[in-house]
Amino acid sequence: MPLNKYYILMNNFLSVSTIESVDALVQKAIAIKQKEEQYRSIAAGKTLAMLFMNPSTRTRMSTWRAAKNLGMEVISLNMTSDTWKLELEEGAIMNADKPEHIKDAANVIGQYCDIIGIRSFAQLKNKLEDEAESVLNAFVNYSTKPIISLESACRHPLQSLADMMCISEHRPKQSKAIKVVLSWAPHIKPIPHAVANSFSEWVQQMPNIEYHICQPKGYELDPRFTQHAQLHYHQASAFEDADFIYFKNWSSYEQYGSMPLVTGNWLPNLEALATTNHAKIMHCMPVRRNVEVRDTLLDAPNSLILQQAANRVYATMAVLIDLLNLQ
Amino acid sequence: MPLNKYYILMNNFLSVSTIESVDALVQKAIAIKQKEEQYRSIAAGKTLAMLFMNPSTRTRMSTWRAAKNLGMEVISLNMTSDTWKLELEEGAIMNADKPEHIKDAANVIGQYCDIIGIRSFAQLKNKLEDEAESVLNAFVNYSTKPIISLESACRHPLQSLADMMCISEHRPKQSKAIKVVLSWAPHIKPIPHAVANSFSEWVQQMPNIEYHICQPKGYELDPRFTQHAQLHYHQASAFEDADFIYFKNWSSYEQYGSMPLVTGNWLPNLEALATTNHAKIMHCMPVRRNVEVRDTLLDAPNSLILQQAANRVYATMAVLIDLLNLQ
Amino acid sequence: MPLNKYYILMNNFLSVSTIESVDALVQKAIAIKQKEEQYRSIAAGKTLAMLFMNPSTRTRMSTWRAAKNLGMEVISLNMTSDTWKLELEEGAIMNADKPEHIKDAANVIGQYCDIIGIRSFAQLKNKLEDEAESVLNAFVNYSTKPIISLESACRHPLQSLADMMCISEHRPKQSKAIKVVLSWAPHIKPIPHAVANSFSEWVQQMPNIEYHICQPKGYELDPRFTQHAQLHYHQASAFEDADFIYFKNWSSYEQYGSMPLVTGNWLPNLEALATTNHAKIMHCMPVRRNVEVRDTLLDAPNSLILQQAANRVYATMAVLIDLLNLQ
Repeated sequence: MPLNKYYILMNNFLSVSTIESVDALVQKAIAIKQKEEQYRSIAAGKTLAMLFMNPSTRTRMSTWRAAKNLGMEVISLNMTSDTWKLELEEGAIMNADKPEHIKDAANVIGQYCDIIGIRSFAQLKNKLEDEAESVLNAFVNYSTKPIISLESACRHPLQSLADMMCISEHRPKQSKAIKVVLSWAPHIKPIPHAVANSFSEWVQQMPNIEYHICQPKGYELDPRFTQHAQLHYHQASAFEDADFIYFKNWSSYEQYGSMPLVTGNWLPNLEALATTNHAKIMHCMPVRRNVEVRDTLLDAPNSLILQQAANRVYATMAVLIDLLNLQ
Repeated sequence: MPLNKYYILMNNFLSVSTIESVDALVQKAIAIKQKEEQYRSIAAGKTLAMLFMNPSTRTRMSTWRAAKNLGMEVISLNMTSDTWKLELEEGAIMNADKPEHIKDAANVIGQYCDIIGIRSFAQLKNKLEDEAESVLNAFVNYSTKPIISLESACRHPLQSLADMMCISEHRPKQSKAIKVVLSWAPHIKPIPHAVANSFSEWVQQMPNIEYHICQPKGYELDPRFTQHAQLHYHQASAFEDADFIYFKNWSSYEQYGSMPLVTGNWLPNLEALATTNHAKIMHCMPVRRNVEVRDTLLDAPNSLILQQAANRVYATMAVLIDLLNLQ
Repeated sequence: MPLNKYYILMNNFLSVSTIESVDALVQKAIAIKQKEEQYRSIAAGKTLAMLFMNPSTRTRMSTWRAAKNLGMEVISLNMTSDTWKLELEEGAIMNADKPEHIKDAANVIGQYCDIIGIRSFAQLKNKLEDEAESVLNAFVNYSTKPIISLESACRHPLQSLADMMCISEHRPKQSKAIKVVLSWAPHIKPIPHAVANSFSEWVQQMPNIEYHICQPKGYELDPRFTQHAQLHYHQASAFEDADFIYFKNWSSYEQYGSMPLVTGNWLPNLEALATTNHAKIMHCMPVRRNVEVRDTLLDAPNSLILQQAANRVYATMAVLIDLLNLQ
């Protein structure tokens, strides 16, 4: 498989659906990780603009680092205050609290950079509004430059690519089928579905993976993201023989954004993992320790949480190289 | 006209009054735009500090991009929170809410960079206070480094230079006189006069331009900025045979910062432009669409709004090159 | 004394206690200042992350400038909003307002950079909590990368190193003993002890310095920082024959964070300095003029306040070079 092939179709990195070969992109990212130094100035003179409608540490730093590793310049804008509210509606009479139309912002910002990264979380108030991905799609429509999702309402593809790298690096052998489990985890407030959706749609396109999801009643994910997954309502059956367990909270999809009452214990200890195949533990962080996952699991030798965070840099390097048509 | 001539007197870029030749600086900026790549590391090792007392997207990004295009480093400081309040009064007993004197801030920041850019908007409460341009002038007085206005209370010279580039690039021929109109536009709240003032003082120094301004009664600009302009109180007479129409809102100057009642329709449609000479449409953005200017005008083929934004980069490059005495 | 020796033990720059030779590090920083240009790309490819739990101008800019002077990349994160609250307690059940554990933040951020700078002020509510330096120490414990204090609850070592440079540069001769005075100064609100503590512990390790501190009753500093200092309760006796006077406010240490009533005049005029040995005036800034120190002193020819700020760049360069084991 040649490295100098481009796997991202449509010139934007928004979801798995425009990746020509998920496994090939994952292997490309792993190859880049092996020889990171070699790419040091491959994108010199190019600029990445990062627009954050929501806070960010990991994504802000890892994306910045990835771009810098390629020799790019980076400008980061926090669009979180009132003065940054963008009008989304075409033809709107803009006499309220939004001083700029997103089409103007997208057009203008696109003139000042080569790639635009955008973070815009779900509001969890209105399912259809969140699924419209209005902010992300407006930038896709109005800007002439490639767009990278830095987590949108329904997806977090850079996280998923980094997660796939981890699974690929730590699975015994590509040829033997493995069992990967996504396990719902408790939380203190309603959380978007982006990471869980995205992980699901990526992992189902990886070779030789049996994909299982366990969650309490009422917390089933949008079935459009999970059509090849086997659903469980208890961790015990899902965990059996698992090679990887990805813990993550999300709120109800059906009763959108709510937190239906959960029965049973969803905070397993190490003993609860005894039936797994020495399962690797995954979480995208930030993680509320001892609420979502116990310290004993997160800090166990087979925890991959730090490698997931580290892989964000190489996943993003692969995506930037691809979108800039470099090597 | 040689490119390696400097047009900014006094070593600061604050208003048109210290530009030796407006048209020459405009042509220099246009020439830089033609061969942008050539300047890539001309200012390597130099640093620009940008201080924002008010929010900014376009100016933040275009100024950053201009500096990076020259190989400069850029540091951007948001001085908007309470902790950044600067005492302006010489000799003040600083026992209130302002923890640092502007003379100390200016002196210290000047030690860490080569050029300082400052944004400090009008408050629109006290005419004399705004006209004193205290923040900008304190930096001019106390810092030993060149100062660039990133929009002050009464002026926005980088915007004006970019606007003059647009007019120069899109006018039929330099030798034939053209008609340029600044048209007041509606808004939902009081807006400073900086862009309108600045556009006026720059355009009146360009060759072969007849300058007209139309505004409702009570919205006349400070006459010190408009002495060679012809004033109208209706768009109809102003628009006749116009080659360029610049739309922009501003509040009352006489009843400073107020919004006197406006009669008549100040939101023209395309038909209202029928008497113009295929006038080009201009606006500095951000623009409240269908409040200030209709979509049909902003998105018309002869709209220059995106070119104005793009020219901000080259205008700033010209100013930085000039102030750093490069080439 | 060879320049290519490392003086910072333990791989972190947190306090004077891990400096092998204070004077040698000071001389190294002064030597770097003489030939600043020579270090331009010595740390190319290295990255500094700056984390601010509190606001910063001088430290933000001078640290950034120092890193850039060495060819480093810098990323600056403001961790001041609610979303950035970090859980400090090991084993905590994280079901409250802190969404990430500091061990995860430290581990992850450490993966994206080569050195981490941290600012985390005293809260002045609980003496033991402040003295635990929980934020700083958690980063030391959990990150695998060197940590630089950008001012912690009890110390500000980069400021102290810059201050020692000033004293060394402006003292008559290294061999003759000089008198250095730290003088308490008035303020309008309770201020942490970091600068005063830190200055004390550094200056007492410099050669040939007699160290005096004057403060009102109730404002004595933590004696662990001042064991070799001579205490005064009036400026008059302290100032006699002083070669350097460092003005700085701090709140009560004994009645932690309070402001006991002060009698007498603690805002001296130039005449009050008549008995000094033409004392140099120092202050770390920001300074509330005519509250902490009079204009006549701050702007006097023998004021060193701007040199102190300028030296921050070279002090930080010396520390970065040392921690990166360069030259």
